[in-house]
Amino acid sequence: MLCWDATGTAVTDAGAAPAVILICEHASAALAGDWTMASPEVLASHAASDLGALGLAKALAAGLARACGGAELVHAPLSRLIYDLNRSPDRPDAVPAQSEVHSIPMNARVTPQDKLNRVMQLYLPFHALVQARIARALALGQRPVLLTVHSFTPVWHGVPRAVEFGVIHDEAQGLARRIVQEAAALGLTTRLNEPYSAADHVTHTLRLHATPYGLENAMLEIRNDLIATPEAQAAMAAKLGPVLARAMATQTELSCRAS
Amino acid sequence: MLCWDATGTAVTDAGAAPAVILICEHASAALAGDWTMASPEVLASHAASDLGALGLAKALAAGLARACGGAELVHAPLSRLIYDLNRSPDRPDAVPAQSEVHSIPMNARVTPQDKLNRVMQLYLPFHALVQARIARALALGQRPVLLTVHSFTPVWHGVPRAVEFGVIHDEAQGLARRIVQEAAALGLTTRLNEPYSAADHVTHTLRLHATPYGLENAMLEIRNDLIATPEAQAAMAAKLGPVLARAMATQTELSCRAS
Repeated sequence: MLCWDATGTAVTDAGAAPAVILICEHASAALAGDWTMASPEVLASHAASDLGALGLAKALAAGLARACGGAELVHAPLSRLIYDLNRSPDRPDAVPAQSEVHSIPMNARVTPQDKLNRVMQLYLPFHALVQARIARALALGQRPVLLTVHSFTPVWHGVPRAVEFGVIHDEAQGLARRIVQEAAALGLTTRLNEPYSAADHVTHTLRLHATPYGLENAMLEIRNDLIATPEAQAAMAAKLGPVLARAMATQTELSCRAS
Repeated sequence: MLCWDATGTAVTDAGAAPAVILICEHASAALAGDWTMASPEVLASHAASDLGALGLAKALAAGLARACGGAELVHAPLSRLIYDLNRSPDRPDAVPAQSEVHSIPMNARVTPQDKLNRVMQLYLPFHALVQARIARALALGQRPVLLTVHSFTPVWHGVPRAVEFGVIHDEAQGLARRIVQEAAALGLTTRLNEPYSAADHVTHTLRLHATPYGLENAMLEIRNDLIATPEAQAAMAAKLGPVLARAMATQTELSCRAS
């Protein structure tokens, strides 16, 4: 069952309470409303969306639903060019005027009222939906694990990045560290808190939704050249899913099977 | 201006971005919907609402709006007998079958679906509204202080409580400790983390809404025999308001006047 809320954020509903809730804040490059001005080059870049992340997240959700007894995916319907859902409204990079080498003219002069409109039309409905899915699980007796799914560009300001799989933690470090341990089987260059860390304000979603409820959580970052096609996304999910399932089975109360 | 959202939670709107957002989760003893069975004795007791807290919170909001340049109050439209808005959905006391000496028959056998209905009809709209007011302030360039306003019963299981004013902190201790210092001028028996503390799960609202945004915050608990009448609530607010304003002026970026 696929449900759409009023703003178009998709939830793949696990039926009963999900063991895992995946969140993909940068799933889409779509523009809408008063915010439709961007060059084709920017729209195709990591500045507009986390390339490959939605396909990976959907495949991971399907695999973890089987392995852990239910999973849901909440993903954004619109581009981070309008509002970056993984940033607090007081952060300048919530509405970025520049993203790496890409300038974003429609964000060059954002009035407080314009920022507020973006908060009301994108940020609030998205996070209300995430909270609703978590509260639903809790009310039904399930304490879900939260995983945010992201991708990053292989070259940043001209410098190649060696890391291929980054696992980022906020306050609770346990699951992220366990995922890094289990990821040794992947054959990927895996690093804790690379290419970003909580100090870069990239764990906003985890802070809002996992920490207040004491839920196990981690942020997953895959280098986007490794998930450039649907086939590569499926292949990565087939390798990564069992790693995540093993880490959750060891670190959390979930009984995930790493088949 | 007084606005009502879809569920009847009142917001006293400060117009521009508020410097202070007050939250009163236990403001009402009203029952509604499928949950209307309670004895007159329970409805009149602290089990149903924090007696006097709404009147105090309204008077504090008016005073702090003048002192600090804008304040808002978000208060609950329905009783904690149906759902305690200051508790996570996985807590048994979110829907209490017993509150001190009062048994609550309508909560004796709550099914998961009934709990979920209460979460959807009370918990989620209330906290979505609180988050919307905070996000609005942040988008408009204001980092508001969050104060939750509560009252407690002077006798608990037959034992009188000596504390008159309790100030409770969650992770950030600064503002709560400063309020206790400033409260020396009140002539009340004031205590930090009494009669409850964060270990009793009473800081849920602060964890959800203040900590993720790094906002200064505190939970205020007044013994309810001190605010039993509208006159007593106004008198307490007239004394307490300047204490809070002084504490916020010292501890936060706000320029509050303690006139």
